[in-house]
Amino acid sequence: MATLVENGVNVEQLVGTVNAIKGQPGIARFKFRTTSQWGGGAKSTASVKSFYGAGQEDASRTQTFRLEGDEPPVLLGSNTAPNAVEALLAALSGCMTVAFIYPAAAEGITVHELSFAIEGDVDLQGFLKLSDRIRPGLQSIHVTARVKADAPRAKIQALLDHAIGTSPVMDSLKNGVPVSVHLAE
Amino acid sequence: MATLVENGVNVEQLVGTVNAIKGQPGIARFKFRTTSQWGGGAKSTASVKSFYGAGQEDASRTQTFRLEGDEPPVLLGSNTAPNAVEALLAALSGCMTVAFIYPAAAEGITVHELSFAIEGDVDLQGFLKLSDRIRPGLQSIHVTARVKADAPRAKIQALLDHAIGTSPVMDSLKNGVPVSVHLAE
Repeated sequence: MATLVENGVNVEQLVGTVNAIKGQPGIARFKFRTTSQWGGGAKSTASVKSFYGAGQEDASRTQTFRLEGDEPPVLLGSNTAPNAVEALLAALSGCMTVAFIYPAAAEGITVHELSFAIEGDVDLQGFLKLSDRIRPGLQSIHVTARVKADAPRAKIQALLDHAIGTSPVMDSLKNGVPVSVHLAE
Repeated sequence: MATLVENGVNVEQLVGTVNAIKGQPGIARFKFRTTSQWGGGAKSTASVKSFYGAGQEDASRTQTFRLEGDEPPVLLGSNTAPNAVEALLAALSGCMTVAFIYPAAAEGITVHELSFAIEGDVDLQGFLKLSDRIRPGLQSIHVTARVKADAPRAKIQALLDHAIGTSPVMDSLKNGVPVSVHLAE
């Protein structure tokens, strides 16, 4: 029997994964990681390789992914890489993509195009502590989704609403996450 | 007169920027952007170039930065790039770097090494809607900072606390951001 693949997603594996988690919920717990190194000025490099999930340390990755950060000159950097807020918005776009495509695949809806245009507003008076009334973080994020799929608009809107409600990065940004910071010896 | 540079940061420009914002607070308002394209399966590419800040559209960038996203095989991807949660943690590390280094430079504290090891916990039962009690987002984020600097540990801790309190990505994650999503025609 042929493997059912929709939108580039192996639907049999997706259904199998969901059923495996139903039988053994602990395998759904994942720990993702990064380690960064400062590179002078505004520059940093974050490395990503190991993670824990499905009950074990992952062994599938043979390469380390590196994500560079910098600032533009107006923010005292040298424009070698996106800044952290831009990287955050990019992470949101990647998460919304998966949170849209997987359920669409599971429902047998072919998607032809999916893009997210995202804008985030920040007032650097917060970062610079020039005002107690202005937060350091983003004041708002606006996402515009563009979708071409073999489904009526109401169904596409329902898939988009599902993605908004299930995307880990979207939920983390909308509702916040407890963060602890520890200074190593 | 020589330009004062500390930690690779032009301190004169930093002080000048702060003073300019004090005189004209509107220039502190920035809008950062990304536009993503789905690439089949779990893959997406986010492009970053334009932003608004300091009262105008930025014209300094000649290149577009591209940030790739994917998933590992256990999450139905093909391991070509970090996933969105990993990218989120990387963004946090880059933001904490800048939020630590700039104030250190302004205070004349030489930093030799700065790294952040970050781990985030997620239970995919939330993403898969297998439980109403488990959120889709990260349940916690743990950051370990390693710093070598010409300052006593108490001062390094104070700089770290300052970074925690002023990093835009840290504040966005800890306290949440209003997000609106619109489906284009």
